[in-house]
Amino acid sequence: MAHNNKGVVKRVEWRISVGDGSSERVGHSCMWAMTASLALKLYMFMKKAWEIGLNDPRKFIHCLKVGIALTCVSLFYYLKPLYDGVGGNAMWAVMTVIVVFENTAGATISKTINRICGTSLAGFLAFGVNWVARRAGNEFEPLIAGVSLFLLASAATFSRFIPTIKARFDYGALIFILTFSLISISGYRVEELMNMAQQRIFTIVIGTCLCIIVSLTICPIWAGQELHVLVTGNLDKLANSLRGCVTQYFSHSEASAISDDESNRKLLGYKCVLSSKATEDVMANLARWEPAHGCFNFRHPWKQYLKIAATMRNCASCIDALIGCINSENKAPDQIKKNMRSISLKVVTNCASLIRELALTMKNMTNSCKVDILIMEMNNAAQELSDLLKSYPKLVDPSESHNAQDTQIEVAAKIEIPVMEIIQVVTLASLLIEIVARVKCIVKAVEELSDLAKFKPAKSKQHAVENKFSPDQEKDEKTINKIQIVF
Amino acid sequence: MAHNNKGVVKRVEWRISVGDGSSERVGHSCMWAMTASLALKLYMFMKKAWEIGLNDPRKFIHCLKVGIALTCVSLFYYLKPLYDGVGGNAMWAVMTVIVVFENTAGATISKTINRICGTSLAGFLAFGVNWVARRAGNEFEPLIAGVSLFLLASAATFSRFIPTIKARFDYGALIFILTFSLISISGYRVEELMNMAQQRIFTIVIGTCLCIIVSLTICPIWAGQELHVLVTGNLDKLANSLRGCVTQYFSHSEASAISDDESNRKLLGYKCVLSSKATEDVMANLARWEPAHGCFNFRHPWKQYLKIAATMRNCASCIDALIGCINSENKAPDQIKKNMRSISLKVVTNCASLIRELALTMKNMTNSCKVDILIMEMNNAAQELSDLLKSYPKLVDPSESHNAQDTQIEVAAKIEIPVMEIIQVVTLASLLIEIVARVKCIVKAVEELSDLAKFKPAKSKQHAVENKFSPDQEKDEKTINKIQIVF
Repeated sequence: MAHNNKGVVKRVEWRISVGDGSSERVGHSCMWAMTASLALKLYMFMKKAWEIGLNDPRKFIHCLKVGIALTCVSLFYYLKPLYDGVGGNAMWAVMTVIVVFENTAGATISKTINRICGTSLAGFLAFGVNWVARRAGNEFEPLIAGVSLFLLASAATFSRFIPTIKARFDYGALIFILTFSLISISGYRVEELMNMAQQRIFTIVIGTCLCIIVSLTICPIWAGQELHVLVTGNLDKLANSLRGCVTQYFSHSEASAISDDESNRKLLGYKCVLSSKATEDVMANLARWEPAHGCFNFRHPWKQYLKIAATMRNCASCIDALIGCINSENKAPDQIKKNMRSISLKVVTNCASLIRELALTMKNMTNSCKVDILIMEMNNAAQELSDLLKSYPKLVDPSESHNAQDTQIEVAAKIEIPVMEIIQVVTLASLLIEIVARVKCIVKAVEELSDLAKFKPAKSKQHAVENKFSPDQEKDEKTINKIQIVF
Repeated sequence: MAHNNKGVVKRVEWRISVGDGSSERVGHSCMWAMTASLALKLYMFMKKAWEIGLNDPRKFIHCLKVGIALTCVSLFYYLKPLYDGVGGNAMWAVMTVIVVFENTAGATISKTINRICGTSLAGFLAFGVNWVARRAGNEFEPLIAGVSLFLLASAATFSRFIPTIKARFDYGALIFILTFSLISISGYRVEELMNMAQQRIFTIVIGTCLCIIVSLTICPIWAGQELHVLVTGNLDKLANSLRGCVTQYFSHSEASAISDDESNRKLLGYKCVLSSKATEDVMANLARWEPAHGCFNFRHPWKQYLKIAATMRNCASCIDALIGCINSENKAPDQIKKNMRSISLKVVTNCASLIRELALTMKNMTNSCKVDILIMEMNNAAQELSDLLKSYPKLVDPSESHNAQDTQIEVAAKIEIPVMEIIQVVTLASLLIEIVARVKCIVKAVEELSDLAKFKPAKSKQHAVENKFSPDQEKDEKTINKIQIVF
């Protein structure tokens, strides 16, 4: 305490001496520190931004594309002949490029179509209203214009709340209100309304065409492709998480030091699956505007991807609960864990293989003959897990004999192990069986996609049918027999 | 088959006879059918839209607000003195109102500030570049203007990819590009640039002020309030789901007929919790722009709501797994279910009460003295559940005596019940214990909010401390003692 007080006194003394002589120097160093801190912050920000770009270089390309499109459209102003053609309305072409040009081709096309449709529809309506207002005489003209503006703007605003319109035509509704207001108000003043409208539509068409050309020709980013990559990537992440968490659980006591950042990152992949709903919804909405690209047709069933993602989220919820159960306080004894180990790992390995095969099927858009085999293997493994649970005493010590004479010993073993000790492994097994059921839902959803998108038939289907009992499966069958003998 | 053929022949004959005499009539009726179907679709659409409005009448009010703001701003055109003041630039006020006016106050303010900042910043930069370009001579003028446009537009576009900027200043970056392009391009042609810029900024300020006044004075919708209502509502939904699913499970055999649509809807409330992340993120981003309103200060800790929502989603994941386990194929025998019933129901009832109390705490922004008691009760119930599991044979028949002589009978009972039969109840219990742990995370997050937002102290805290052993708790203590005696 005394020491503490001394320290405080010393600091106060120092402050006083500083305050006495060199306040200017302190102010200087303070400013310097602030500047340095600001510079550091700016540097960190720029570094982060640069890393974002490095992670996905297409972002840099998109920026260059916007620059190119804008420079092209500004030629309308800089080159005299073009300027004389469209005059001051060239501004609308510039505005169109800036507002319409989006990162993905789908978004650009969607905005383009929305802008053209919204502008045209509003233009026709505004001219109609203007025509009626002029016939009504000078007194009623502002009244009719005002009332029509009020009603149509309110109706169009309301339409933006309707989910189907919000998903596809939100921007169109906005442009409708904008154009209707501008024409209906200008109509009251500008005499050469038709000429202006003509020029404006002409420049908007030029702007949109430029956007679409630049967007679709220079390294296009397709929303459909993005959705496809996101969903298939998430399938892989799901498989990694599922396998990772169970493997880590069973090897935890042995080699917990091995689990590094990399494996932890893999383990948490299921969180990406849970949190990517919003992105998927947006991408699926944009993808439907895109023309055929890569291996996707114009009317590729993008909505089915959302269904697949929903089944994946169901599965990820279960993995979340599984991880919760693994990290819970009721730890199972090592002996029980050891007995459960091989079969549990078999179940998750089979699940993970199946999910990865589904991802591969989607990536190649080719049906795989392996899927059926993998489903069978997964079902078999789940069945084995159930069988193991059914033979409860085996959990304790599988080397015990089944003789009627030994019942007493067996009973003793049972009494020693309360339910509290096996609760973790039983919950794990139960959740694994639930996960198997949910993986089947993913399989069903992918099969529906395969039907809808007409995936190519499996290349070696004939071969697969002939070799129905593949080496893998034979091994599998042998294992089952072995287990049946053991129990 | 013969019958089938006859039918086909008949139909063909009928078609021929139709084709012979009355093709005109068929065409007529076909058109009529199409019109009717179109009218029906339109009617259904309008009905759906009307219902959307009825469900949330504020949507109607928002539409009226947009209409009012637009009509007000159009006065600039209709009334001559005002028109003479700002001239053709009044168009910018109209445009501002349409683009800036959003549903929530936060969104309107955010767009307003973005628009003004983006416009001003871009304006200053554009003038600077223009000044430099003019000094460089006629030859270099378009070159400098073009290169600066290309660079700044690319940089601003890239900034929109950076998450922190995207969340708050996305619209500002867009407006920056728009304004910079328009001024830098116009600057090359229009001589009275300063005058134009002045008028334009003046009209934009008028438009934004009008938006903010209308948005904040006529039935304002606050993003913060919406977020608050969403999160507290989701807490209630979570409590209902949790209680509903376990109650339904244990009463399934008795009164499955009672479970109607209403209860099913309640049961699926947790899905709302899982799927409302995107809305919450948007609302939290908008809420930070809003001034103090209702019982929220300007710097209310909106981010903490996102943390609470994250803990709620964790809990909802577990409920999802729980429902999966309840619907799984391994049904537990009625006897075991009966023994588990009261304690399981106690756990979920306590969890649900606690979650509802948390919702109430947040709604009233007042700490509740009940929370601590409810946490204790929940912990006690969870402990009882653990105790019940520890006394495994009791699951089978709690009336069995504990005499050493009866060991043989007890053993017989144990052998009769394989793990497969108790797997469902064990998983249920395990998941309930996990849910209790996750509910505690919600409690922690709400307590953090209470600290950050400085919730009012509990009204009857003194009273609660004095009566620490409340009747409820006493009852609870008695129950525990009773249970300890039974086992």
